[in-house]
Amino acid sequence: MVSFTVYKGSKDGSIVKSTTSKPELADDQVLLRVTASGLCGTDEHYRTADMVLGHEGCGVVEAVGPAVRHFKKGDRVGWGYEHDCCGTCDWCLSGRETFCPERAMYGYADLDQGSFATHAIWKEAFLFALPEELTDEEAAPLMCGGATVFGALHMYGVKPTSRVGVIGIGGLGHLAIQFAAKMGCDVVVFSGTDSKKEEAMRLGANEFFATKGVKELNIGKKIDCLLVTTSAQPDWNLYFSLMTPDSVVFPLTVTGGELKIPYMPFLSGGIRIQGSVVAPRLVHKQMLEFAARNGVKPILMKFPMNEAGITKAMKTLSDGDMRYRGVLVPEQEA
Amino acid sequence: MVSFTVYKGSKDGSIVKSTTSKPELADDQVLLRVTASGLCGTDEHYRTADMVLGHEGCGVVEAVGPAVRHFKKGDRVGWGYEHDCCGTCDWCLSGRETFCPERAMYGYADLDQGSFATHAIWKEAFLFALPEELTDEEAAPLMCGGATVFGALHMYGVKPTSRVGVIGIGGLGHLAIQFAAKMGCDVVVFSGTDSKKEEAMRLGANEFFATKGVKELNIGKKIDCLLVTTSAQPDWNLYFSLMTPDSVVFPLTVTGGELKIPYMPFLSGGIRIQGSVVAPRLVHKQMLEFAARNGVKPILMKFPMNEAGITKAMKTLSDGDMRYRGVLVPEQEA
Repeated sequence: MVSFTVYKGSKDGSIVKSTTSKPELADDQVLLRVTASGLCGTDEHYRTADMVLGHEGCGVVEAVGPAVRHFKKGDRVGWGYEHDCCGTCDWCLSGRETFCPERAMYGYADLDQGSFATHAIWKEAFLFALPEELTDEEAAPLMCGGATVFGALHMYGVKPTSRVGVIGIGGLGHLAIQFAAKMGCDVVVFSGTDSKKEEAMRLGANEFFATKGVKELNIGKKIDCLLVTTSAQPDWNLYFSLMTPDSVVFPLTVTGGELKIPYMPFLSGGIRIQGSVVAPRLVHKQMLEFAARNGVKPILMKFPMNEAGITKAMKTLSDGDMRYRGVLVPEQEA
Repeated sequence: MVSFTVYKGSKDGSIVKSTTSKPELADDQVLLRVTASGLCGTDEHYRTADMVLGHEGCGVVEAVGPAVRHFKKGDRVGWGYEHDCCGTCDWCLSGRETFCPERAMYGYADLDQGSFATHAIWKEAFLFALPEELTDEEAAPLMCGGATVFGALHMYGVKPTSRVGVIGIGGLGHLAIQFAAKMGCDVVVFSGTDSKKEEAMRLGANEFFATKGVKELNIGKKIDCLLVTTSAQPDWNLYFSLMTPDSVVFPLTVTGGELKIPYMPFLSGGIRIQGSVVAPRLVHKQMLEFAARNGVKPILMKFPMNEAGITKAMKTLSDGDMRYRGVLVPEQEA
């Protein structure tokens, strides 16, 4: 048996320390010691569920199952939202395994482990080697947040010549600005107030607009691609007036209810509204290589990996005070 | 001066006969005698406007301006929604001139002429040579309806291996079924009742589902591409349950208000909601060649080109009795 400490959600939203025990490593399983975990808005969604939280994990390999071929003890690895897939359906065969009907995803499968933990056991094929250029702490927020914004920019026709709008400067937004800027795009950032303007420009934005209370904006040249990274849907009428024809909008916000789009501007503008989730593994690997080569790094706030540290990190996030991604690290390193 | 008869909308919605006079042909202008005009739902929208109606025109060249190079007297030509563009903006230079900011479009420009008329004068570059395989009457509904559905299928990644859903069997729907079937797609048709089932199958549908009062459908394999051709928005929750991940929806319905999409199925399904308008000229030409080569032909109801004929055709359309596209022809041929 292998036993390790995990941190779970609970009915009243408090973080509960627990122990997960699993059989000895078999087949393609890899046991890793968690060295860093990002905190994502989705973790908040599962805070009241009886499951281990965290899905932006990085760690060091401690042991490998008999069928593991590519990793060995001591290797630095990361993982994200997806833990398994069938490997044979049309989605898996076309490199889009995030849509596999048998996919194992955070929140739906493997609820007894996550990245809020001391250790975890995952299948080799769903682990990513970490590039030398990134520390474990820097790589962790890329495992979901980075993969989500890079995937949107990379998989749906955005070009280095595109003028890219980013709404919101948070965990996702501050990475989106960097990725788009390093792709050579013309990056325009929208945020409530000017408080994050300097940071946005430093991260690679070419232009910045404060939008609080604003009903109309003149941004000059219009936008080819818009990433919505705020926790609420934006004023679509305002933003549609800033889009070029034949442009693409990524509403990345995770929320329920309806997406309500002004119909005729959408139709006559030939606008594409693109749903997208975390990147499949090939794109995730390309994202890590791109980040390493071009120096895309999250800006972090560190918290200790224990009940108090997780609770404080979650409060910092929900209060809107995170600058810009929270990372949990082992207590002794915090 | 060149004078000809035109039919206009008017404040109370009645069709008014009038005369348009224009200077002698100059430059790249082509005078044509209208031999057939389709009736489109958009004509209904402009029925109460003081403008000449009709934008699915076919005719025979009667005279050409001094700079015309490709057409001569007697040639059969057609035209659609767009009459002019700047030729130099990014949209024109990339073959997407339907988004040119200086485009001249039906309803916005050249309000003194249209295809509900005896004659019209257009710029050579916005006329299409009609293929031998299609009569003028058959070609007319392709000039907007055909170009719209072919453009959606052709321009946004739909493949011959796609399972294509078509909602509604009307002017657009009955052409969409044929185009998709001739592209080799697996075509699934949704209509209120079974009344058009046989026709849909004859046009190339592989499967047919009646949807009136239906809250849940089991269609087996899910749909990769959905064309909405009805005059009202469909039950999106029902249809989203029939879509594969990474699929595309074309809400072709022209209507105001908001497009209200169930948010999480859209996001987690990685679904693309694609606005689209009439095809640009290259795609329009490809559509005509494709229709000619593969025998895509509209099913017509003919009406005489006069006040009574246009009024009757519009009533037939708004009553839902058109099978499936109305075409106006010169009085003596009706």
